Amino acid sequence: MEKLYVIKIGGNIIDDDALLSVFLKKFAQIKSKKILVHGGGKQATRLAEKLGIPQQMKEGRRITDAETLKIVTMVYAGYINKIIVAELQSVHCNAVGFCGADGNSILAHKREKEGTDYGFAGDVDQVNESWFKQLLDQDISPVVSSITHDGKNQLLNTNADTIAQEIAKSLSASFSVSLVFGFEKSGVLLDVEDELSVIPVLQAGYYQKLKKNQKIFAGMIPKLDNAFAAISHGVNQVIIGKGEELEQLITGATGTTIRHE
Amino acid sequence: MEKLYVIKIGGNIIDDDALLSVFLKKFAQIKSKKILVHGGGKQATRLAEKLGIPQQMKEGRRITDAETLKIVTMVYAGYINKIIVAELQSVHCNAVGFCGADGNSILAHKREKEGTDYGFAGDVDQVNESWFKQLLDQDISPVVSSITHDGKNQLLNTNADTIAQEIAKSLSASFSVSLVFGFEKSGVLLDVEDELSVIPVLQAGYYQKLKKNQKIFAGMIPKLDNAFAAISHGVNQVIIGKGEELEQLITGATGTTIRHE
Repeated sequence: MEKLYVIKIGGNIIDDDALLSVFLKKFAQIKSKKILVHGGGKQATRLAEKLGIPQQMKEGRRITDAETLKIVTMVYAGYINKIIVAELQSVHCNAVGFCGADGNSILAHKREKEGTDYGFAGDVDQVNESWFKQLLDQDISPVVSSITHDGKNQLLNTNADTIAQEIAKSLSASFSVSLVFGFEKSGVLLDVEDELSVIPVLQAGYYQKLKKNQKIFAGMIPKLDNAFAAISHGVNQVIIGKGEELEQLITGATGTTIRHE
Repeated sequence: MEKLYVIKIGGNIIDDDALLSVFLKKFAQIKSKKILVHGGGKQATRLAEKLGIPQQMKEGRRITDAETLKIVTMVYAGYINKIIVAELQSVHCNAVGFCGADGNSILAHKREKEGTDYGFAGDVDQVNESWFKQLLDQDISPVVSSITHDGKNQLLNTNADTIAQEIAKSLSASFSVSLVFGFEKSGVLLDVEDELSVIPVLQAGYYQKLKKNQKIFAGMIPKLDNAFAAISHGVNQVIIGKGEELEQLITGATGTTIRHE
């Protein structure tokens, strides 16, 4: 099967123009088919502050009231998505930026209240495989902002990690998918204080052992549980590491690679 | 040739949620292929005010400094584009929203200074016909926000009337194109104070006569000159009138239709 990279970048790259530029040049150089997924970093928070709209976070997730939804739609689907696409075009990578409403590409539902009311937060129901496939067939790289919709005229703020994972899973029937999570650390660390303690390859058995021995720090557990879930749903491998080291990351030379046993 | 409607809406519809909703439902009901082009109305100005970024207009055009470009990108390509697409999806009209950078769909250059420095304002060079055509071939309606790019990593604020016209011209080789300008008046008026004085059909000879007799008010002249230019570049007809009367407008039952002699 043909290779496909689904690459998610986080706030550490998006908030830093120079890093973003380095990353996008490396992204453009990947010869295989590729999809970029992004959230919005601190820019939505900063815009909300300037507009005097108080922001609430709960376990790293933004509580999205109507005004906040407007802000994240402007910042994620508008500003960040378009500066990324314009820069990719300038380095000869044909890209199309969109959100989950466009082409009905990602259908979600408003998250049920379970103690916390996350407001207009979406949980993904369905990825429109054929929309992604026909863009990829034309060598167009989709650039997906983390806004989805429910098909009933409601946009929804949606976790970018989840979007990347759902796209990766849905396209794994047609491609050999590598799901790449760029974040601020060099990979999964044996010692959270030591950037040199990257675990190069993490298999399920070893992960369970590390979790049992409390060697994996708490923040990584949902990320890794999701990674193993993606693997068990057909994704070929998940790679976690520094987005700005993209060319080494996708070969497994840096970062942590998660594979089947 | 197959029919195609290229429909531009202005601030009077975009700034009014109820009118926008009426318009979008009517747009969704058009059975022929269709493209929607929109600017941003007063929302960009309002956001700029809240953020304390002074706005300057010159002859109805916004002078776009770097901060203003960021705002119009957020508002036009982000918020407005996405609420339109989400609403179209909810009425079963498959739409994809984008700006000129996406798919390299509209290439422009930064307007030369000629007395006035318009800042990051773009003049259109090229429309990527094949991108529009393959969306239309899949019965996807493109929703185009009035932001373009220069291919060298610069987004540009671009007049939505011009974008609609350039798209209409470029697709007139493949489709029988009707270019529809929705605006706040019922059509081209013989008496600007009288909404009932709509000229139903305006041909070039009659237009020249009206211009000579100063029967056409000043603000309409660039719009009409552009309309006749579109006609002479292969567009089948241009219709000008109230966007919210869309179903009557596209049949020519209301508004002013501009055709070849």
